Amino acid sequence: MMPNPVSTDDRPLPPILLAEFMVDPEKKTVCVYGHLDVQPAKMEDGWDTEPFVLTEKDGKLYGRGSTDDKGPALSWLWVIEAHQQLGIELPVNIKMMFEGMEEYGSDGMFEAIADQAQSGKFLNDVDFFCISDNYWLGKTKPCITYGLRGLAYFELSVQCAEQDLHSGVLGGVVHEAMTDLIHLMASLVEPGTGKILVDGIMEDVDPVTEEERKLYESIEFDLEEMKESCKVKTISDKLLSDDKVSVLMNRWRYPTLSLHGIEGAFSDVGAKTVIPAKSIGKFSMRLVPNQDPDKVEKQTKAYLAKVFEKLGSPNKLKVEMVHSAKAWLSSTTHPNYDAAAKAIERVYGVEPDFTREGGSIPITSAFEDATQMNVLLLPVGACDDMAHSQNEKFNKSNMLNAIKVLGVYLHELGNIKGPKPSKCRCEPLTPEDLAMPGAFARAFNCKCEM
Amino acid sequence: MMPNPVSTDDRPLPPILLAEFMVDPEKKTVCVYGHLDVQPAKMEDGWDTEPFVLTEKDGKLYGRGSTDDKGPALSWLWVIEAHQQLGIELPVNIKMMFEGMEEYGSDGMFEAIADQAQSGKFLNDVDFFCISDNYWLGKTKPCITYGLRGLAYFELSVQCAEQDLHSGVLGGVVHEAMTDLIHLMASLVEPGTGKILVDGIMEDVDPVTEEERKLYESIEFDLEEMKESCKVKTISDKLLSDDKVSVLMNRWRYPTLSLHGIEGAFSDVGAKTVIPAKSIGKFSMRLVPNQDPDKVEKQTKAYLAKVFEKLGSPNKLKVEMVHSAKAWLSSTTHPNYDAAAKAIERVYGVEPDFTREGGSIPITSAFEDATQMNVLLLPVGACDDMAHSQNEKFNKSNMLNAIKVLGVYLHELGNIKGPKPSKCRCEPLTPEDLAMPGAFARAFNCKCEM
Repeated sequence: MMPNPVSTDDRPLPPILLAEFMVDPEKKTVCVYGHLDVQPAKMEDGWDTEPFVLTEKDGKLYGRGSTDDKGPALSWLWVIEAHQQLGIELPVNIKMMFEGMEEYGSDGMFEAIADQAQSGKFLNDVDFFCISDNYWLGKTKPCITYGLRGLAYFELSVQCAEQDLHSGVLGGVVHEAMTDLIHLMASLVEPGTGKILVDGIMEDVDPVTEEERKLYESIEFDLEEMKESCKVKTISDKLLSDDKVSVLMNRWRYPTLSLHGIEGAFSDVGAKTVIPAKSIGKFSMRLVPNQDPDKVEKQTKAYLAKVFEKLGSPNKLKVEMVHSAKAWLSSTTHPNYDAAAKAIERVYGVEPDFTREGGSIPITSAFEDATQMNVLLLPVGACDDMAHSQNEKFNKSNMLNAIKVLGVYLHELGNIKGPKPSKCRCEPLTPEDLAMPGAFARAFNCKCEM
Repeated sequence: MMPNPVSTDDRPLPPILLAEFMVDPEKKTVCVYGHLDVQPAKMEDGWDTEPFVLTEKDGKLYGRGSTDDKGPALSWLWVIEAHQQLGIELPVNIKMMFEGMEEYGSDGMFEAIADQAQSGKFLNDVDFFCISDNYWLGKTKPCITYGLRGLAYFELSVQCAEQDLHSGVLGGVVHEAMTDLIHLMASLVEPGTGKILVDGIMEDVDPVTEEERKLYESIEFDLEEMKESCKVKTISDKLLSDDKVSVLMNRWRYPTLSLHGIEGAFSDVGAKTVIPAKSIGKFSMRLVPNQDPDKVEKQTKAYLAKVFEKLGSPNKLKVEMVHSAKAWLSSTTHPNYDAAAKAIERVYGVEPDFTREGGSIPITSAFEDATQMNVLLLPVGACDDMAHSQNEKFNKSNMLNAIKVLGVYLHELGNIKGPKPSKCRCEPLTPEDLAMPGAFARAFNCKCEM
């Protein structure tokens, strides 16, 4: 149990759990990551069962965190338990790093990772990382994920008074903060297309190459199933595009912007005639490779300041990027990925698709940057698991197969020949080298004296 | 205790309290109205004291409902208690009608009033109505109110899916409901000016006459004090206009639109990366004389449908006017108003200003329409009492003087010569007659055989 490094008396944060199952320091070491915190959930949000009571129904385990990320995190413990009960020695050393702040932006994890990567510390001898915190592209075919979008989460606040006012008494008298806030939020994204309107936001996004387009065309992905799983079928029966490639590119390789809500305004059932004194709009952008969160922050602040200027309002504006993460792109040819692909083939009898993800798992890059070791994303839940939503679930079959896949994956790691990558004393690769496909694989097959 | 007429098993509503203090059926009868329900309030909204514990500090009584409207309603009981303890007979019959649904739109009161106005029932012999549920224009000078704005409260919902979605996984895939909702809300009102953008909304608003302008110019009203009391001084130090007449007209005789908030989106502290499935925007317009809520509803629905059409969204839109009230305008020369003016002069030593109000008290017109008797608005609280806001208060001095003013008012009503207005059998006035200044005073001085 490691205290959260950014925890304070005013804002106490959950500790970070560190565990290790060491077989032999000369063997390779994999560090698995998971998170034990979850998104908020209330019965009245529309759950069919109590969100915090795990409930089995039709082969599905319903409950907040079942798939994101308590179920996958627990699966590692079952893998270890299985080895213990069967009397089989673990083929590699296993370390675990489980946190409790992921849904808020992994506060403290970045400091903890940087600290623990130092010589002689917990992460310093780790050779491979494995994270199970994302989902399959579909409901039945397993995949391995080699790319993630980043995130820039903003709070945009407008204040017109020190305290809330009565819309009857003062409607027409004051510059209402909500009027400004709603116009600012509307200026961010185009309805109908989802186009981000922040000036310059697309300038670092790579153009699509012909090769890339072909890769996307080859991926197994059913738009009708997508409509079902994201529950738009009965509402509009329409996605932002009718074209498979466009939908996948929008999810994986283009930035998007979502408006999440407003804090400080009236949000209950009923009809309150209030002029909120201060309202805070929440929105976030998903970032793609080459987009720098600091630059996105500057662009977004400059854009909102420009729009606000035009509104002609004397109110107080504050824009803050409350957390951010760079996008991440790995290589599908690294032995770590190869081990996972073999495990999936063994358990499921199919070759996995190699996918990217629309979401962000900010610690992915953090592990990679701090240790220079390869990070694998190995999803075990299905696309319709409804993480962050009502009726989140983890299929029982996915759980059982997860234990098998993770177990076989450890043995495949154990079969990898050659030295421990963490002992390599090569110079770190240059950014140019890192940008080349297969960079981490080459780093692993280094010829340095260890 | 009268059951609320629109109460159901699914939605049980508080009863309506009826009380009477009858001296002599031949004497004139005043019915006083108050409401015992209050706006929501939580300590974390920014209160300095527990909102539901009445707390005296520096001569002020802090607490939710202290001024809106429990304090003024209680004052009537103290007037009666004072008469009882001093052994003085009440100069008029007093009836009381206290409700518990005012802050939600007085559900059930309209049915109750229409019912009780019938021959032989509670309101049928009432000659005058008096309501203390609004505020002085300033902090020290009392006033009497002869006009109110109406209200049209809307819920505007957009749905994109059956359940909430993850912005990482599905940002860029679905038509997000919040994007549409925020654009629809932004289309309603112009920042900087507060101008309502709904087509045709101004067509029934009377143009300002030269005479009217002069009336407004004569009213005692301090813009700097206004900035203090509505707590914009330290934030922007700016109102929508720098001109006293414009500010008063915006409050009293022009419609305004306020955006109150959003139900169903993320509204807590923190950073949730959700795509809300269904979000409900709440906004309301304050209406002025000649504006018909049903017409306003049609105009608003047509306008939002037009804007939504242009957004090119396949999502589900629903617009509903959840409650409404017509604006109300009375006459300052009716004996009921005269009695109140004399009472104020006796207690405070000044002639009151005659003011209108930006807010809505929908039952005002309901009493008048059902009984054809005059309704007086007699505010007792100060302009900075912060109804609906944090730190709502009722000055102790206002409370004590309220008891005196209401007591003297009863005696002035008792001094009015002539028959009981409720016994008049004249034909009801035509709408044209009613629109003339002093219409109710003329009705009162009728020459009919009773």
